[in-house]
Amino acid sequence: MAGRGEFGLIADLFEPLAAGYPGALSLHDDAALVEVDPGHRLVVTTDALVAGVHFLPDDPPDLVARKALRVNLSDVAAMGARPVAVLVAACFPKEAGEAWAEIFARGLAEDVRGFGVPLIGGDTVATPGPATITVTALGQVAVGHELRRDAAREGDVLLVSGTIGDGALGLLVQRGRCPGLSDAHREFLIDRYRLPQPRVTLGPELAGIARACLDVSDGLIGDVGHICRHSGLGAVIDVDAVPLSPAAAAAVAEDAALLRTAVLCGGDDYELAFTVPAERVGEAQAAAAACGVTVTAIGVMVAGDGVKVRSAGGAPEAFTESPAWRHF
Amino acid sequence: MAGRGEFGLIADLFEPLAAGYPGALSLHDDAALVEVDPGHRLVVTTDALVAGVHFLPDDPPDLVARKALRVNLSDVAAMGARPVAVLVAACFPKEAGEAWAEIFARGLAEDVRGFGVPLIGGDTVATPGPATITVTALGQVAVGHELRRDAAREGDVLLVSGTIGDGALGLLVQRGRCPGLSDAHREFLIDRYRLPQPRVTLGPELAGIARACLDVSDGLIGDVGHICRHSGLGAVIDVDAVPLSPAAAAAVAEDAALLRTAVLCGGDDYELAFTVPAERVGEAQAAAAACGVTVTAIGVMVAGDGVKVRSAGGAPEAFTESPAWRHF
Repeated sequence: MAGRGEFGLIADLFEPLAAGYPGALSLHDDAALVEVDPGHRLVVTTDALVAGVHFLPDDPPDLVARKALRVNLSDVAAMGARPVAVLVAACFPKEAGEAWAEIFARGLAEDVRGFGVPLIGGDTVATPGPATITVTALGQVAVGHELRRDAAREGDVLLVSGTIGDGALGLLVQRGRCPGLSDAHREFLIDRYRLPQPRVTLGPELAGIARACLDVSDGLIGDVGHICRHSGLGAVIDVDAVPLSPAAAAAVAEDAALLRTAVLCGGDDYELAFTVPAERVGEAQAAAAACGVTVTAIGVMVAGDGVKVRSAGGAPEAFTESPAWRHF
Repeated sequence: MAGRGEFGLIADLFEPLAAGYPGALSLHDDAALVEVDPGHRLVVTTDALVAGVHFLPDDPPDLVARKALRVNLSDVAAMGARPVAVLVAACFPKEAGEAWAEIFARGLAEDVRGFGVPLIGGDTVATPGPATITVTALGQVAVGHELRRDAAREGDVLLVSGTIGDGALGLLVQRGRCPGLSDAHREFLIDRYRLPQPRVTLGPELAGIARACLDVSDGLIGDVGHICRHSGLGAVIDVDAVPLSPAAAAAVAEDAALLRTAVLCGGDDYELAFTVPAERVGEAQAAAAACGVTVTAIGVMVAGDGVKVRSAGGAPEAFTESPAWRHF
């Protein structure tokens, strides 16, 4: 970086985010040291967000930081793990200079504190290309309580947290779709796209109750399809049961086709989809309620393969994703 | 990605690199699961390499993969840790397409196998910008045996592994400098720049013997300066003792100024610089010999601050880095 240089930037902007975590070694060393509690496994994931691919080049850098952090925390939660720490490799656009990095660090600071996940390592580079932010998130989970994609069983009830479809609709709204929506609904949906709410409390609560779990990032149908494929099962989703926010319901009322595109296939929800043995659904709902999250049963895992959908009490039918549906 | 898409690419190219590590969950899940041995800490580091910044845009993608992996393994080694696994977030240049990704994966496969570090997670993105590769490397080290930058003590002997300056000289040679070198010397230096040899065996051997340690990536003087600053000490380096390869010696013979620029400040060596109590230098040398690496005493840690250099038996003098010396 120009100006303060990489070391100055790290000291000024990022070192404070390591405070309170001795193993971060104040970001001064070659690597960080992490303790894993006895009887636990470390969970680790990494995801890159690129300007023009995963966010818009003129999105505010603080929001970019928070989104990059959150999508990774969502992956940790989807394993049933408690988040422990993050590392951030931030390639800042050279022409945007340190101002971009400063606003980015401000957003990162807000979420590092808000989620209680110290920054324990990373890298900063001035890139000639688009901003590219790669976050690595660490968590831990008790051995045997991990929530995997391949652990669903026939007869399990399929549930989702929160509401589905808001993220993809938010992107469409940003692009001028759904002109009939109220300002409040538009703002709600755009906010849900820009700033996901990873289910960091719910995920660990479901560990030991749920069987299979993932976060809905590719789209509900596609993601449930991952559970099906890796568990060797099929799923039937009751479309009418899929929980919609008031804003999403208004968007679908305006344009019914959005239900089968943006809502069911859109992705960017960062809600958890998980399966629970039928006799433990109440337990899962109580655990969710205890952390202030609504979970809704939307279907069932069945013998066979693939995701079928059923609406208005009709027969299950195979769901074919429109090949034209790509949100980027 | 075009063609097979992200899932096909991961399945075809990357999933085989997870073989043999059950916690990788065949790269199918939201995150990987890592066991840390009792009495050990996890070591974690992440570094991004960007085309046009850290490597040349037309460098072969397989070499890029290997370099990205190796610079991170070098950081793990510098903590005294044994490497355990890696995650790779690869942003491939969109216009280069899957061909780039395939050659990249081939190089990654070679080193993942060669170093015995399975690929346990990652991300692939087609970027509109330059190739950007972010590797996260995990290792483990016995509690209390970590090699940190802040642990040097007055009177410790300062040693380095291998030879110093080859990487930076290799870059200069690639750019047309040192025209008088033999072809063999040119090839040697370029290879050292393109394909660092992380000291993955030496690092863990030094754990429990060395005090402070880091890998020489910013340049010998700068990196020893990090040890000084974080340990609250100074260092005196005997310039004549700094080990040079025959190729580097030939380059310096041709242009003496290169000693104080490329060799002492150039970086990209990925050798270990470490301090050892004087009475344990023999033990460190024996440990190094056992893993086939030469280590050389080049100086001593002293009270005070900053790095001084001494040549031809003269008095130590403060080393001022030429501000013009920037190898990118």
